Amino acid sequence: MATRTAAERREEERRRYNAYVATCPSRKLLDTLGDKWVSLVLTALAGGPLRYSELARTIAGVSQKMLTQTLRTMERDGLVSRTVTPSVPVRVDYRLTPLGEDLIPLLEAIKRWAETHMEDVEAARAAYDRRLRPEP
Amino acid sequence: MATRTAAERREEERRRYNAYVATCPSRKLLDTLGDKWVSLVLTALAGGPLRYSELARTIAGVSQKMLTQTLRTMERDGLVSRTVTPSVPVRVDYRLTPLGEDLIPLLEAIKRWAETHMEDVEAARAAYDRRLRPEP
Repeated sequence: MATRTAAERREEERRRYNAYVATCPSRKLLDTLGDKWVSLVLTALAGGPLRYSELARTIAGVSQKMLTQTLRTMERDGLVSRTVTPSVPVRVDYRLTPLGEDLIPLLEAIKRWAETHMEDVEAARAAYDRRLRPEP
Repeated sequence: MATRTAAERREEERRRYNAYVATCPSRKLLDTLGDKWVSLVLTALAGGPLRYSELARTIAGVSQKMLTQTLRTMERDGLVSRTVTPSVPVRVDYRLTPLGEDLIPLLEAIKRWAETHMEDVEAARAAYDRRLRPEP
């Protein structure tokens, strides 16, 4: 068996660790919530079911393509359910599933933390940048 | 004054809304936590201060370049503080600031949610994919 160099061992360790991080449940959740459209749809639906057109109006900045794609991902993830009423025109409603509803308190905790502390983060950034570039 | 088309109005609305979302505190926090190295460093330092070399060993998958860059960002954000002891060789310690410490309960809430529910998300995905591709 060939002896591996220290660099090869480190590279293998890195790959294993990255695979571990990739399958970590917290990482997956942060990847889901980190998608801004996912968290905006969750927030929009927290008040109750909405039709596709109402969602598009509530989340004003979203393109139709992006909204459709986001809703499909969230339906696949079990966070929203989709009801099609075969009227003319077809009516499509979206609502949170129990799993999606269960995310709302966590989103609210994130919002509370952000509203309480993100100004401190901004202030820290400004102070750090001032230290790096002193006034002439 | 030139009359704007509906497409131009929608484009302007989209730009304004995206700017609003970009400055939203929750969005900024999710962008910060969404960086996997940031959340791993926070978790590693939750147990107390660590030297650079100890951090590198704890977070096995991180390259030196990425760890240095992550720590600099977190120092700028006011989440960690850096103490240099002018020994030979120079010793550098990192610890959470009170602001960084304050993030730990939120990270733990995210972790708890993920550990309780991410299996449901995976199950929903598998069920969705089975519906799309029925067995022959």
